[in-house]
Amino acid sequence: MRALLQKEIDFVRTEITPEDARKRFRNQPYKLELIQEITARKEPISIYTTGSFSDLCEGPHVSNTREIDPNAFKLVRLAGAYWKNDESKPQLTRITGVAFRTKAELEKYEWQREEAKKRDHRKLGAELGLFVFSDLVGPGLPLFTPKGTIIRDLLDNYVRELRAAKNYERVAIPHITKCDLYETSGHWSKFSEELFRVSTREKHEYALKPMNCPHHAQIFAASLKSYRDMPVRYAETTMVYRDEQSGELSGLSRVLAITQDDAHVFCRESQIETEVFSIWDIISEFYSTFGFDLSVRFSRHNPETFEKYLGTKEVWEKSENAIRKILDARHIPFLDGLGEAAMYGPKIDFIAKDSLGRTLQVATIQLDFNQPARFGLSCINERGEKEPIVMIHCAIMGSIERCMATLIEHYAGAFPLWLSPVQVTVLPVGEGEISYATSIAEALRHENFRVSIKTNESLGKRIRETKLEKVPYTIVVGKKEEAEKTLSVERRDEGKLPTLSLESFISRIRKERDERK
Amino acid sequence: MRALLQKEIDFVRTEITPEDARKRFRNQPYKLELIQEITARKEPISIYTTGSFSDLCEGPHVSNTREIDPNAFKLVRLAGAYWKNDESKPQLTRITGVAFRTKAELEKYEWQREEAKKRDHRKLGAELGLFVFSDLVGPGLPLFTPKGTIIRDLLDNYVRELRAAKNYERVAIPHITKCDLYETSGHWSKFSEELFRVSTREKHEYALKPMNCPHHAQIFAASLKSYRDMPVRYAETTMVYRDEQSGELSGLSRVLAITQDDAHVFCRESQIETEVFSIWDIISEFYSTFGFDLSVRFSRHNPETFEKYLGTKEVWEKSENAIRKILDARHIPFLDGLGEAAMYGPKIDFIAKDSLGRTLQVATIQLDFNQPARFGLSCINERGEKEPIVMIHCAIMGSIERCMATLIEHYAGAFPLWLSPVQVTVLPVGEGEISYATSIAEALRHENFRVSIKTNESLGKRIRETKLEKVPYTIVVGKKEEAEKTLSVERRDEGKLPTLSLESFISRIRKERDERK
Repeated sequence: MRALLQKEIDFVRTEITPEDARKRFRNQPYKLELIQEITARKEPISIYTTGSFSDLCEGPHVSNTREIDPNAFKLVRLAGAYWKNDESKPQLTRITGVAFRTKAELEKYEWQREEAKKRDHRKLGAELGLFVFSDLVGPGLPLFTPKGTIIRDLLDNYVRELRAAKNYERVAIPHITKCDLYETSGHWSKFSEELFRVSTREKHEYALKPMNCPHHAQIFAASLKSYRDMPVRYAETTMVYRDEQSGELSGLSRVLAITQDDAHVFCRESQIETEVFSIWDIISEFYSTFGFDLSVRFSRHNPETFEKYLGTKEVWEKSENAIRKILDARHIPFLDGLGEAAMYGPKIDFIAKDSLGRTLQVATIQLDFNQPARFGLSCINERGEKEPIVMIHCAIMGSIERCMATLIEHYAGAFPLWLSPVQVTVLPVGEGEISYATSIAEALRHENFRVSIKTNESLGKRIRETKLEKVPYTIVVGKKEEAEKTLSVERRDEGKLPTLSLESFISRIRKERDERK
Repeated sequence: MRALLQKEIDFVRTEITPEDARKRFRNQPYKLELIQEITARKEPISIYTTGSFSDLCEGPHVSNTREIDPNAFKLVRLAGAYWKNDESKPQLTRITGVAFRTKAELEKYEWQREEAKKRDHRKLGAELGLFVFSDLVGPGLPLFTPKGTIIRDLLDNYVRELRAAKNYERVAIPHITKCDLYETSGHWSKFSEELFRVSTREKHEYALKPMNCPHHAQIFAASLKSYRDMPVRYAETTMVYRDEQSGELSGLSRVLAITQDDAHVFCRESQIETEVFSIWDIISEFYSTFGFDLSVRFSRHNPETFEKYLGTKEVWEKSENAIRKILDARHIPFLDGLGEAAMYGPKIDFIAKDSLGRTLQVATIQLDFNQPARFGLSCINERGEKEPIVMIHCAIMGSIERCMATLIEHYAGAFPLWLSPVQVTVLPVGEGEISYATSIAEALRHENFRVSIKTNESLGKRIRETKLEKVPYTIVVGKKEEAEKTLSVERRDEGKLPTLSLESFISRIRKERDERK
């Protein structure tokens, strides 16, 4: 590659006919398959030529090899990969390279990658004992241990608390449904590839739910609503299922069973703005707790692939205008997400930057005129008329699995006190101090702290173990501490605190926990 | 029937050969089907003859019509029923009759039936707005409204609280699995009819989980356990799925999606007794809260159908002896449940008597040596050896749906304060009192009471509405109450309380709620 750069060769794009393409690549079966697909999609077939080498490529390329800095690129990975990520297909070799404008940018990328590898939630999740996979259960189906479940529950309870303050009510639905529900909602035709099908002994066709909105719409529809009842806000933390290809599954970030902290607000058109702002407040508060900066993307439909969406052009114009008005009222810059809309409506997507500077899509607010129309949802307004209503879909975490993966990597497994599965470990120096250590542990548990007490093995080994578990506070209890009724406390990553009493330690950590610091 | 009773005719049982049976009933296709089934099961074919009438019947019968009291029987139902409860089969007519020893017993039965009809949870559930069904979602798949979800959550939290006091930890699992898990656990071969099959785009075979034990066993197995870690107690409230025939579905008592408050204790053989007693305590406390009397059944395997069970005769003897020892230690009478064991082990089943005197199977404690062996579960004991361990399966409610159905009927929808979706309704007499009424509602909400305030419609209509909702406390706020800063309170079914201050009302109901009275 370096030799070619010095030669300053052009990359030349040529469009060729399907016949020509088939002839040129007649000995390359994979490319023949691609050519057939491109032809079926009625897209142009392009090849790129660099010196004497020509290959099938969609592009774009730089125009000449001189534009590439020889110190700012690198081949980063050589790995086996199934053709089209399908494990029933042959395995090929994939070479991955990256190029940047400058050497400094490449170095930053490499640091990020190195750090990300150390923080990989799959590695840390196993080391910290948060979740496990089982070959018998299958890939993409994590099983959460008690420690992992503590984190799941704490995150979920936090969202629940923020929503309760805004008068959300909880509902509960089953995970399967007759297909009729998704035929009415429109998911069946637009989403059908990813739907898990369930067959019954009576040969009915059921599906595992990929989304909760149609079920929630059925609860709304079950009783007549007056304008005085509106808005109606249903929240539920529940699993949805998407039939992903097994080659795409990865740790907690890509799973078959996704726990959504889902909510649907059913409201009148005149209430959209207030409700969206109210959700926005929840999102801001939730993510600021972790120190994430949020940016916003306006995800619109793509008129060129209109067949992917539900509803009419008029409805899309109306709903996108409503979102645009809200974004303008908020006076903040936003990214334009052409083609990033949901099947049923435009979205405000929130993008967080983590401690490594990586950007991740997190929360979303989606405005939906289409499903309410398809399900005939309405309220009786002040004039006694049936008034069509709208739905706002809003997940704060999106998925608890993805949120956990993000937080594990963001904190490198060293969770803040309130999220730590074990918050304090008490280590008696010797057998003589076990009873005093136990009384300290009990006092902390009485204040609802999660405390472990380790009595076996040497003190050094127990201290090392506690460090590996990334427990925020370690208390070592020796003869001196017992005699003086004091605590010798070490804060993770900060070292030893000045000697303090049990009461002042409790008041310190109670504040830290309750403020979610 | 009355005429035949006076004739004092014998019921005579005769066993006949399959050939004879097929000849006798050659014009009755349904009976020919039954004869074929009985023959296939290698069971005797019996007919009963009463005077000139003979019919296929398993029996038993009384020996003579004179034994039947003409005033103690009744034909109670005439209804269409699908042949074998299968809606794809022809509809027949089913006549149901009951007979008792005495007229008084018949009358008690009729009262119970009449009262049960009034209390039917399907009727009350709809009237109180606790759950709904949707034709699009399908039968057997209830959707829980906000009010119903409040009850679900309260029940679940109560069990969770009782378990937390006994050091149960929570885990979380997905609802699907590769079939391999159930092949290893043994469910695949013994339970396969009721398993919902899931097909994937890559043509893997998955199942919707009918039980949680194999998943929990996978979490246990994922890390090495020392005897110091034992017992390990995993609890999880999660849905399981059973492919019931649609003719058998009914309200919340028979559903396709069942929410289990499931738990599995992994322990050493020496810990079985302590753990079973600890679960027994939780069960006693939970059901005494509702005023249920519990009786106990020892559910054993049936040696004559040994092929229905997992494991060896030796293991069954061992596990049944362990249960028998525990029952003896508890010094209580118990019913003998031959053939009522679970596929994997014997059970202690708890049977409650509700306010109508009906008996219902509720909680269960199941001892399982078989699955731990199939999954190779063990702990390292004091001598450094791998020691096989056992599992105790224990659901307190069994299923939240069934528990809700039971409680709705037990209380006729008038739930105790702590379980009521709305605990207090505040009714301002006129517009002038809305602001005072609102301040009362706010004060109560501040104390975490669930309060509604009704301001529209006439006072009479609002009072009637509140009665229909079976709200425990109604506060009517008029000019006099506002001037005197007092409350005029009505207790459901008890009438008006003496006038009292807001503070003393709050302290009264706080006590009532916290004591779950």
